[in-house]
Amino acid sequence: MKVVIIGSGAGGLTAASNIKKYSEKAEVTVITLENRVAYSPCAIPYVIGGEIASFDEIVMHTPEYYNEHGINIITESEAIEVVSSENIVKYKPKNDNEVILNYDYLVIATGGSPFIPPVKGTDLQGVFKVRTIEDGAKIKEWAEKSENAVVVGAGAIGLEVGYGLKELGINVSVTEMLPQILPRSFDPDMAIKVQKYLESQGINIILNQALDEILGNELAEKVVIGNNIIDVDIVILSTGIRPSIKLAKSAKCAVGKMGVKVNEKMQTSIPNIYSVGDCVEVYDGITKQKTQSPFGTTAVRQGKVAAKNITGREAVFRPVLNSVVSKIGELEIGAVGLTEISANLNGLDIIVGRSKALTKARYYPGCKPIDTKIICSKEGKILGCQIIAKETVAERVDTMALAIAKEVECEELTEMEFSYAPPVSMVVDPIVLAAEDALNKIKKDL
Amino acid sequence: MKVVIIGSGAGGLTAASNIKKYSEKAEVTVITLENRVAYSPCAIPYVIGGEIASFDEIVMHTPEYYNEHGINIITESEAIEVVSSENIVKYKPKNDNEVILNYDYLVIATGGSPFIPPVKGTDLQGVFKVRTIEDGAKIKEWAEKSENAVVVGAGAIGLEVGYGLKELGINVSVTEMLPQILPRSFDPDMAIKVQKYLESQGINIILNQALDEILGNELAEKVVIGNNIIDVDIVILSTGIRPSIKLAKSAKCAVGKMGVKVNEKMQTSIPNIYSVGDCVEVYDGITKQKTQSPFGTTAVRQGKVAAKNITGREAVFRPVLNSVVSKIGELEIGAVGLTEISANLNGLDIIVGRSKALTKARYYPGCKPIDTKIICSKEGKILGCQIIAKETVAERVDTMALAIAKEVECEELTEMEFSYAPPVSMVVDPIVLAAEDALNKIKKDL
Repeated sequence: MKVVIIGSGAGGLTAASNIKKYSEKAEVTVITLENRVAYSPCAIPYVIGGEIASFDEIVMHTPEYYNEHGINIITESEAIEVVSSENIVKYKPKNDNEVILNYDYLVIATGGSPFIPPVKGTDLQGVFKVRTIEDGAKIKEWAEKSENAVVVGAGAIGLEVGYGLKELGINVSVTEMLPQILPRSFDPDMAIKVQKYLESQGINIILNQALDEILGNELAEKVVIGNNIIDVDIVILSTGIRPSIKLAKSAKCAVGKMGVKVNEKMQTSIPNIYSVGDCVEVYDGITKQKTQSPFGTTAVRQGKVAAKNITGREAVFRPVLNSVVSKIGELEIGAVGLTEISANLNGLDIIVGRSKALTKARYYPGCKPIDTKIICSKEGKILGCQIIAKETVAERVDTMALAIAKEVECEELTEMEFSYAPPVSMVVDPIVLAAEDALNKIKKDL
Repeated sequence: MKVVIIGSGAGGLTAASNIKKYSEKAEVTVITLENRVAYSPCAIPYVIGGEIASFDEIVMHTPEYYNEHGINIITESEAIEVVSSENIVKYKPKNDNEVILNYDYLVIATGGSPFIPPVKGTDLQGVFKVRTIEDGAKIKEWAEKSENAVVVGAGAIGLEVGYGLKELGINVSVTEMLPQILPRSFDPDMAIKVQKYLESQGINIILNQALDEILGNELAEKVVIGNNIIDVDIVILSTGIRPSIKLAKSAKCAVGKMGVKVNEKMQTSIPNIYSVGDCVEVYDGITKQKTQSPFGTTAVRQGKVAAKNITGREAVFRPVLNSVVSKIGELEIGAVGLTEISANLNGLDIIVGRSKALTKARYYPGCKPIDTKIICSKEGKILGCQIIAKETVAERVDTMALAIAKEVECEELTEMEFSYAPPVSMVVDPIVLAAEDALNKIKKDL
């Protein structure tokens, strides 16, 4: 069985290694544009800021490692076209002629590409996107001689990179065209807490303003955003990811608004072509609407599902809740499921519960404030959660992801067992306190 | 409505304040042997060791605070007898005559009392139990002039106190009659990791030996345990809790082997008498057997349920999974549900999954090893979990408690969403890795 995988991100490489795990005899080839594979793009902002010492550290395996383990990785090569009627893919190695490869199964894991705002000056020197390890290395090099930075886009990656640049001693402005930071996963009342923290760290936040233009000769010199004209040496565009669907289209796979269409086996409209990662369209577990899920964990889970199905096992990929977590400076932030805003946009009638609590017993040294917001339906079903603290946010988000997936009711959550010892928790968990707050409002409404 | 509550622990005071919350007009009286109320006994070991500066800090509210908030607290008074046919309780204040109080509802929250091994010498000076803040204060005072300590019983509290005494510069031996430490919640393969850590910290662990005798004149001088004769200045007995059922018996409430019998409303066999906390018998959520649940969190949840039912609301207390968590030195340990040993004792056919992983991305500074063990049924249902790491254990145990409560299958757990960012997690969660390990064995068996 010949399997060709296009893309060496989390989805592509997870598919590759799992196919090899389940079917030793499979001939697995990965074609990638990059020269480095098997790293976590999520780590790039932390290398820029210096928390992680170098880009080398975030690379788990070399292409040679994979080659030694029976996975043939073809680096610095672009997959040009798939002729699905003939089961062939054409690719072009750097500085070399096109090559044709045939396959029994193809996995399209082409990922996403950064959305570049359609304004003047984004092609100037000193303007960067944040996607690959190469992008990261360029940013870090350029940042070393920079004094003023503008990060366009205040999603998690934008904020992480902004904080990283600040750590390097650079003056940083983060701009966002929406009226709040973290608009995708957090509501304004929670986002403002993160904003205040960032501002306390000396980061300038500009909201409600879209990027108008980047001015400069060869080099970026000024960023024009609404009424603001900001001197810059470096500009980071962190304005979202668009699924890379060109190759899937060339193969004549069906493509939706959010990416390549796949069934729950991660199979495209062409039976022997699968697709995983940022390039595919998924379903939201709550709204049941089509959505994106551009996260490494999603790609890994999809890669496993594709590998199992290709090797004759059975596995399905379920709709996503899009758990997100980030650490920005000392602050850990996490969210899962619907925000209040997205619930309202979806016409859902909801109740919100909040708690302000502590990560440990009040008297235990080092306990830290933790803010929790729970969104639940009018009937009490948990739909979403947002948490901000300086520790233990990710694991609590995981608990809430499970609660949402298992359709736990607010009341049930207040009755749940949460473990307790003064050095690690409160006797009544912050999640329970938030659920009790929501429950009080539900009961009042009935 | 007159409500009398016997006992000022987590169960009694939670019942008191929730009754007041739901029914402002209720006359609530709490009778307690103690002179300090509203503290967490779980914090005592950490005050002994000096991590928490003083016993004052762990007290949340004074009796005066409760009195001002409409809850009448009668301190240093022993409830002697309940005449349930007449709805009266007799109590005796310290240095004063017996008083009779009548009630519409009674809540028996008498807690538990430390089991004292039936051997010679446990009444010598320098021999302590660990239950109340007063016990803690006495231990701390005595420890200040001590050089050698023996802690009898290697459950979580024994180990916490042992570590605390070691922190004070005392030579510490912890002894356990069973062949492992932490026998109630951990299996030997996990307990040994904790044991090795404690030994690396200079604590002497003696297993498989019961306490034979404590020698000494007025003062404890030597502890005889099997072949070991150990010089001591201080001995801590941490050999478990027995439910305090005397008062319930005087009221003629039905009492089982594990404590006062209650229904799921926390109502005893006498309809206007409720009971909550360490004194009651509960059901294990997995084995459905009667068991104890001597935890502050259980008491709080039971107190809420009793309060709701007494004030005409409806609430039920569900069978327990007995989540436990502790921090001993740098080590955080947690468990929930069945151990492998208890599953075997219950005749259950099980599969075990394990993972050795990290709390953050491998390359992120400060990532720490994390050991996870999952116990699931032959069919794949999650039954238990044990986790050891230097951080984020409690929250993961909470996730697993929810997974067990919602009867999540191992395969489902491997497909679950876990949030990811390099500074706070691995791209594949340690829990998922352990579940995948179990799943591989299940699939192999089929």
